[in-house]
Amino acid sequence: MLRNDYSEAAAPEILEALARLSTEQNIGYGEDAHCRRAKELIREFFGVPQADVHFLAGGTQTNMTVISYFLRPYEGVISCDTAHINVHETAAVEGSGHKIFTCPNADGKLLPADVEKAFLAGTDEHMMKPAMVYISDATETGTVYTKAELLSLREVCDKYGLLLFMDGARLAVALQCGAADFDAKFIGQICDVFYAGGTKNGLLYGEAVVIPDPAKAAFFRYHIKNRGAMLAKGFAVGAQFEALFTNDLYRKLADNACRTADIIRNGLLRKGIPLEGGSVTNQIFVRLPKQKAEAVCERFGCEKWAENGEAQVIRIVTSFATKTEDCDELLAFF
Amino acid sequence: MLRNDYSEAAAPEILEALARLSTEQNIGYGEDAHCRRAKELIREFFGVPQADVHFLAGGTQTNMTVISYFLRPYEGVISCDTAHINVHETAAVEGSGHKIFTCPNADGKLLPADVEKAFLAGTDEHMMKPAMVYISDATETGTVYTKAELLSLREVCDKYGLLLFMDGARLAVALQCGAADFDAKFIGQICDVFYAGGTKNGLLYGEAVVIPDPAKAAFFRYHIKNRGAMLAKGFAVGAQFEALFTNDLYRKLADNACRTADIIRNGLLRKGIPLEGGSVTNQIFVRLPKQKAEAVCERFGCEKWAENGEAQVIRIVTSFATKTEDCDELLAFF
Amino acid sequence: MLRNDYSEAAAPEILEALARLSTEQNIGYGEDAHCRRAKELIREFFGVPQADVHFLAGGTQTNMTVISYFLRPYEGVISCDTAHINVHETAAVEGSGHKIFTCPNADGKLLPADVEKAFLAGTDEHMMKPAMVYISDATETGTVYTKAELLSLREVCDKYGLLLFMDGARLAVALQCGAADFDAKFIGQICDVFYAGGTKNGLLYGEAVVIPDPAKAAFFRYHIKNRGAMLAKGFAVGAQFEALFTNDLYRKLADNACRTADIIRNGLLRKGIPLEGGSVTNQIFVRLPKQKAEAVCERFGCEKWAENGEAQVIRIVTSFATKTEDCDELLAFF
Amino acid sequence: MLRNDYSEAAAPEILEALARLSTEQNIGYGEDAHCRRAKELIREFFGVPQADVHFLAGGTQTNMTVISYFLRPYEGVISCDTAHINVHETAAVEGSGHKIFTCPNADGKLLPADVEKAFLAGTDEHMMKPAMVYISDATETGTVYTKAELLSLREVCDKYGLLLFMDGARLAVALQCGAADFDAKFIGQICDVFYAGGTKNGLLYGEAVVIPDPAKAAFFRYHIKNRGAMLAKGFAVGAQFEALFTNDLYRKLADNACRTADIIRNGLLRKGIPLEGGSVTNQIFVRLPKQKAEAVCERFGCEKWAENGEAQVIRIVTSFATKTEDCDELLAFF
Repeated sequence: MLRNDYSEAAAPEILEALARLSTEQNIGYGEDAHCRRAKELIREFFGVPQADVHFLAGGTQTNMTVISYFLRPYEGVISCDTAHINVHETAAVEGSGHKIFTCPNADGKLLPADVEKAFLAGTDEHMMKPAMVYISDATETGTVYTKAELLSLREVCDKYGLLLFMDGARLAVALQCGAADFDAKFIGQICDVFYAGGTKNGLLYGEAVVIPDPAKAAFFRYHIKNRGAMLAKGFAVGAQFEALFTNDLYRKLADNACRTADIIRNGLLRKGIPLEGGSVTNQIFVRLPKQKAEAVCERFGCEKWAENGEAQVIRIVTSFATKTEDCDELLAFF
Repeated sequence: MLRNDYSEAAAPEILEALARLSTEQNIGYGEDAHCRRAKELIREFFGVPQADVHFLAGGTQTNMTVISYFLRPYEGVISCDTAHINVHETAAVEGSGHKIFTCPNADGKLLPADVEKAFLAGTDEHMMKPAMVYISDATETGTVYTKAELLSLREVCDKYGLLLFMDGARLAVALQCGAADFDAKFIGQICDVFYAGGTKNGLLYGEAVVIPDPAKAAFFRYHIKNRGAMLAKGFAVGAQFEALFTNDLYRKLADNACRTADIIRNGLLRKGIPLEGGSVTNQIFVRLPKQKAEAVCERFGCEKWAENGEAQVIRIVTSFATKTEDCDELLAFF
Repeated sequence: MLRNDYSEAAAPEILEALARLSTEQNIGYGEDAHCRRAKELIREFFGVPQADVHFLAGGTQTNMTVISYFLRPYEGVISCDTAHINVHETAAVEGSGHKIFTCPNADGKLLPADVEKAFLAGTDEHMMKPAMVYISDATETGTVYTKAELLSLREVCDKYGLLLFMDGARLAVALQCGAADFDAKFIGQICDVFYAGGTKNGLLYGEAVVIPDPAKAAFFRYHIKNRGAMLAKGFAVGAQFEALFTNDLYRKLADNACRTADIIRNGLLRKGIPLEGGSVTNQIFVRLPKQKAEAVCERFGCEKWAENGEAQVIRIVTSFATKTEDCDELLAFF
Repeated sequence: MLRNDYSEAAAPEILEALARLSTEQNIGYGEDAHCRRAKELIREFFGVPQADVHFLAGGTQTNMTVISYFLRPYEGVISCDTAHINVHETAAVEGSGHKIFTCPNADGKLLPADVEKAFLAGTDEHMMKPAMVYISDATETGTVYTKAELLSLREVCDKYGLLLFMDGARLAVALQCGAADFDAKFIGQICDVFYAGGTKNGLLYGEAVVIPDPAKAAFFRYHIKNRGAMLAKGFAVGAQFEALFTNDLYRKLADNACRTADIIRNGLLRKGIPLEGGSVTNQIFVRLPKQKAEAVCERFGCEKWAENGEAQVIRIVTSFATKTEDCDELLAFF
């Protein structure tokens, strides 16, 4: 199955970290030593020594908890139309009271000019007030932002007093795919809040929210609990992140996903099969005749994406666990 | 540490179930075979063959998701003042828009007469409309309901058109402690919705919501997702519950917690140390001189409960993992 | 000033009705004789003898209260992009937890094909569930629906189990403008809920929500109060609606707005000044050179609408109080 | 009828102010000259030259809008158990996501010691964070705070960083009844936010929210609109408040309510009929044998309050419109 990056339970190192817990006792609600150490490792990785770090269970929960913490009831968030919060979260953001102002996407990315336009469209109290920009990197379509693009977004945020929030559910592959012209520390510098996803990078569950300026996060733990997002056995997420940011595992797992995706991408191109969009990470969008698309989806559990005229676009996804043989098997099918 | 029942990661059988997942791929969002089998086992255990079963991550999340699903915006929930939703959930229920009508507790239990009084206190549109009764079994203070008490609560619910929701975060010990004069199937008969807690009974994380009449749950999955409570790797919770309801593990783990609590309770009574309240499950409330209380808490990680005049009440909690030696060590300290 | 239809306080008959109250005492919260009689008159007017009728203060409040009453937390509403709820209500709908699924507008109208497309775009629990269609008649751009269009919308609603909600803030001019090929009773037949606006048709304040099937409105008064929308002196709105639906005042006031709008429209056309869009009610959208637009806005308090290339579209609005001389004065300015 | 202070439409001066509007046009949404002048008069009256002033329609709406503006999602409000927000507003506060921490009332008043206790009861992230104190003056039971009591409340608010919000739905009678040992300017000094009620003091509708420090109110207009509380014809409320704060009408209307209440209170005492509680304003609570209570309620439209043993407490309310003869008629009935 090359269906997605959360089909396998967890990387062996992560399951071992969990197994090691069986001989321990830890205090609850994320106030244990594993969480402490994991936070320290994450602060170091992203170059944010003062940052507040919090562990939540999943992506939608994290997006909703972060957005509803930072926004006031009359404030909204700007994103592109393909944003996960806009299309795959059953309106959890609106469910917490906030409007999403959507902009057209540029192959999954949000453009500064569109942020500006969205902001300027609502300038009085008859419109909700845009107060945050939401982006994800890698994007929903597997593309990644360049340093220049992120700096431009930061600039427009500064110009209009908007917070910049990066959904990093797939941040690891964005950093690791070779297309990003910046390192992890740049993310720490440029965002008001972001998260490093674990669920899609080899953890059983867990996302690490990072708020570089702790003054902005004074009561975030209250909010986590109020949203039902505080885990009693927080130490189990802490232990997973501790393992993830030890011995470069965060990068290694992402590297496997990227490497196998590249094998598939290159193999397909060599066979003359057209790719859709500019994904450079672990999602591969392929344009196929409908019958062929059907067959691939059935055989490899892939999901159908948009139709494109006569063709059907399907999505192939690799993960920390994808093997070279899986790629060969897929390619042999074409 | 005898601090609580979520200090240890998970029972060995649960960690093994998770480890076994490492060689599998599963479909996401709880639509996998492990979840299917776990649901079947749970339906059987509680005697509710048609029930809708859903897996969530933790207690506060489950309470908030269930309550906000079943209530309309102008409806509220009746509970006793000590209810977990009222005192330890950072107002997640109010955060989703609903008032909690609190009644005095009778050693942690809610009395039908108080439900009636609370319901009748608000009979026009200037008060929120009570529409649900929330109880937990075991209660916050470790007591358990009798069959007669539950039947009386059901009766008052029927009389006034109220839903009966049982928080079963500690249902296993309630069923297993020897004080319950009913079996698991009775819970399935009497509740409109309840959950079987996993986090406090040996799971790494997970609560199983059971809605005996599936007609009442038609869109519950939408609501789970809207609340940010749907786990991408739902199969990991499914696999844990599958193991928990196999070979009677659910009962065995609770049995250990109950048995070790009884050892402690009996030991304390023999030493003439007064217990507080009528807990018969894995929580033991002890009334101690303040200095002694301090020492026990420091040594065994226990939490201070209410003060009672000159004395300090502390809480001792056993779990699936507590050993006889732990009990002996504690008792030797007195 | 030809700025909008809520620049003048109230029609003389309405102010008289209020003045008459000064010698009375009435019971509060809309349970008085004026409200009773007004409801009866409204039921008769719209041919809905069983309907539940409720009086609220303003349009945004009414939209938010109605939508959040009828929808569950995981349900959303389909409207066109120009809908008042989408662009001029500071996200009051999202503020109550619901997503608005927007469709392109056809000169302010929502097309059944777009409703179908919006509904079918979200068919699983990862998207909020569309459960209601919101339209307004007259629309935001002054156009009106035909009977055939409304029947088609009703059909698509029936096909997919969607509720049909009509914002009738400007329903009076829609019914009275001569372009509607149906009468008020058709509205009563076709909508699950609608309101007859008062604020924009000569009332000091007040909107009358009509729910033809009272079974759907059992606890609407609770919800009104919960949203902060129940008026203590409900009788003052009741008395205004009583007067509005006596002696055909509802139609007469709308007729004045329509008649004076027609004078302006015809006058402009005769002068060769291009109108924008197909408004047939009391809003007139005119395309002018920017300098001229500026001058008209300054002199007559009109609002600027979208720019259209070199031109500026401005909006002229007539009301129950507009006089023929006002029209002449405006036309003389061109 | 001596049922309440919102049985009569409006004072003659208010109806005249509304009638005068009939020859005017005004800009909408409270940005007109009447609102501007009314705000200036209110600032002067309460001695808060910089204050932000906003006009809303009713009390529940105002309480909910103010509280949800000032609180973050994880924050709650402390009030006494008899508070209007706790018992007569269909949980509008909880409906906007906030818990009310209730304290026992001291004849309708909130005691600083109870605020302290409520605050200290919740000191970690498992409880909602108290962030505001809500009081009303006059209270729900007609009593009024002394200067010393208010200073003590302010002190405890300062000690714990709590905002002080005064519901002034009946502030006029509190200031005018002779029992308050402070003037209106003291309210302006001591509160973070309060409102001067109009609906219960001779206005057709309207409450004036006052935020002495405008820095705290930067986006309050957005929030008003988001809650559905912004009136299109805001000028109609502005004109009413303009009249209310001209020629001392605010005090004169309250004075009539207080004077007639005193006539009734004195008359009852002279007849040996026991009063309940220490109301000194326009509410009179009388303890009567049940049959007599029944008869008075039937004849004068009074509401039954709590039962007190064999007796029934009923509430008599005077208003701006109560005449001496009404009092005589009531007293003659005893």
